[in-house]
Amino acid sequence: MKLLRWGPPDAEKPGLIAADGSIRDLSAEIADLAPARMTPADWDRLHGLDPAALPAVPAGERLGPPVAGVGNIVCIGLNYHDHARETGIPAPPEPIVFNKHTGALTGPAGPVPLPRGSLKMDWEAELAVVIGTRAYAVREQDALAHVAGYCVANDVSERVYQMERGGQWVKGKSCPGFCPLGPWLVTPDEVPDPQALRVWLEVNGRRMQDGTTADMIFPVAFLVSYLSRFMALQPGDVILTGTPAGTGLGHDTFLREGDRIRLGIDGLGEQDQPVTANGAGNGGGH
Amino acid sequence: MKLLRWGPPDAEKPGLIAADGSIRDLSAEIADLAPARMTPADWDRLHGLDPAALPAVPAGERLGPPVAGVGNIVCIGLNYHDHARETGIPAPPEPIVFNKHTGALTGPAGPVPLPRGSLKMDWEAELAVVIGTRAYAVREQDALAHVAGYCVANDVSERVYQMERGGQWVKGKSCPGFCPLGPWLVTPDEVPDPQALRVWLEVNGRRMQDGTTADMIFPVAFLVSYLSRFMALQPGDVILTGTPAGTGLGHDTFLREGDRIRLGIDGLGEQDQPVTANGAGNGGGH
Repeated sequence: MKLLRWGPPDAEKPGLIAADGSIRDLSAEIADLAPARMTPADWDRLHGLDPAALPAVPAGERLGPPVAGVGNIVCIGLNYHDHARETGIPAPPEPIVFNKHTGALTGPAGPVPLPRGSLKMDWEAELAVVIGTRAYAVREQDALAHVAGYCVANDVSERVYQMERGGQWVKGKSCPGFCPLGPWLVTPDEVPDPQALRVWLEVNGRRMQDGTTADMIFPVAFLVSYLSRFMALQPGDVILTGTPAGTGLGHDTFLREGDRIRLGIDGLGEQDQPVTANGAGNGGGH
Repeated sequence: MKLLRWGPPDAEKPGLIAADGSIRDLSAEIADLAPARMTPADWDRLHGLDPAALPAVPAGERLGPPVAGVGNIVCIGLNYHDHARETGIPAPPEPIVFNKHTGALTGPAGPVPLPRGSLKMDWEAELAVVIGTRAYAVREQDALAHVAGYCVANDVSERVYQMERGGQWVKGKSCPGFCPLGPWLVTPDEVPDPQALRVWLEVNGRRMQDGTTADMIFPVAFLVSYLSRFMALQPGDVILTGTPAGTGLGHDTFLREGDRIRLGIDGLGEQDQPVTANGAGNGGGH
């Protein structure tokens, strides 16, 4: 299934994509796509529905992030061989883990506001993994059973805030709009191999990233198991699994007002975001 | 008011402390102490109640964390002059920011389980600040108006996971039980000056930390304003404001099974936790 949330910000309703590509309203079937409502039993129940029998949602509705009530956004740094090469940093011996603040979440159309004083705002196309059931100290072979689904994510980053403002990365990862998620939460039955997905990103129509999850240093099942030894992953947690080569950091070129970012992953849909100037933050001045 | 949540884990109900020290049941007055229910208007309404007229809660009930639905635990590193001195690291020019995973939250009595393979589990008594209303790019003089209240917190840390496992600190801060919070959420009217509070901690009856929030490098109002320039703080976010001198790291001594941790802050109550051996994590082996 391709699940989604449609409607105005903070008032989205659940929906799914029917075979004809139309959006169908799920709000009579499930209160929301939210923690404790994304178990295998929930998916089995939704699978049993006939999408054509659900109410149609008018075309052109805004999409929000496809998961509500996200409790933690846990991110992996430098997880593609080609990205590690472009940054000149050796492949890490074990995963680098950091967080984004959940206030960064937005839908697949953004917008992505430049924070006031931003000098080096950057893109990172990533495969996002959404946790469906609590995972603590799980083995790698059991890890994927805890996954509710997969999404496209843009791990937007301000490199000055991230790397020149005090040592830990969360500062440059957390502004409002810095985590477009979606368009869809795609259930695992439609993603038979999360290590065989093409990941791409364009800025103003120019292809900047064109990688594959086959190039991950640490694959998804390993990451879920690894993280679960340091924290009890909760339903609704989102794991961002790292980005392939082609970031702005790798090319010393960054985002400006009016830029347009498009990105996508095989089978998980596409995002299309404008970079706007209305960010109220001012991390640059203190 | 001294607000709290009592009852079994994940089924706590709201309550408050009456003038005679008894716990009174608030569950008929407010669904929970949770995001979007901790605004100044909510506090005004609860202030208008007569605690003596509320149902009494039997003595000996377990207390949970005094806030439900915490979305982010944002932590400040090295924020006391005396702690910076004991670690031998210069006082940072601006706040060091990192996260704890929300799965670390527990009540004031813990327990604090040693993760499997833990070598250097450590304590950190801290003043916790709970956000009541969204704060993005707020000025320092407006910052405290966004605070719903204050709590005692123990920022339990595994120093090997934090500092020898890949560069970012979240790995050593996030195991289940690593964030005892409470006993109470104390509303700001009872904390006229958050920079004049004694903070202390004992291990097995031996006083290890005995500091004051007057020694903070960056005070609470500055921290809320500063963070709000990098992220839109959400209702229910918890900010841990750093720890005074006297950590295990400063003395090269760490926690073992059977240890007992007691800590407290003037006016905010005390915590008392056993260190247990039943942690299922195994961050030490991979």
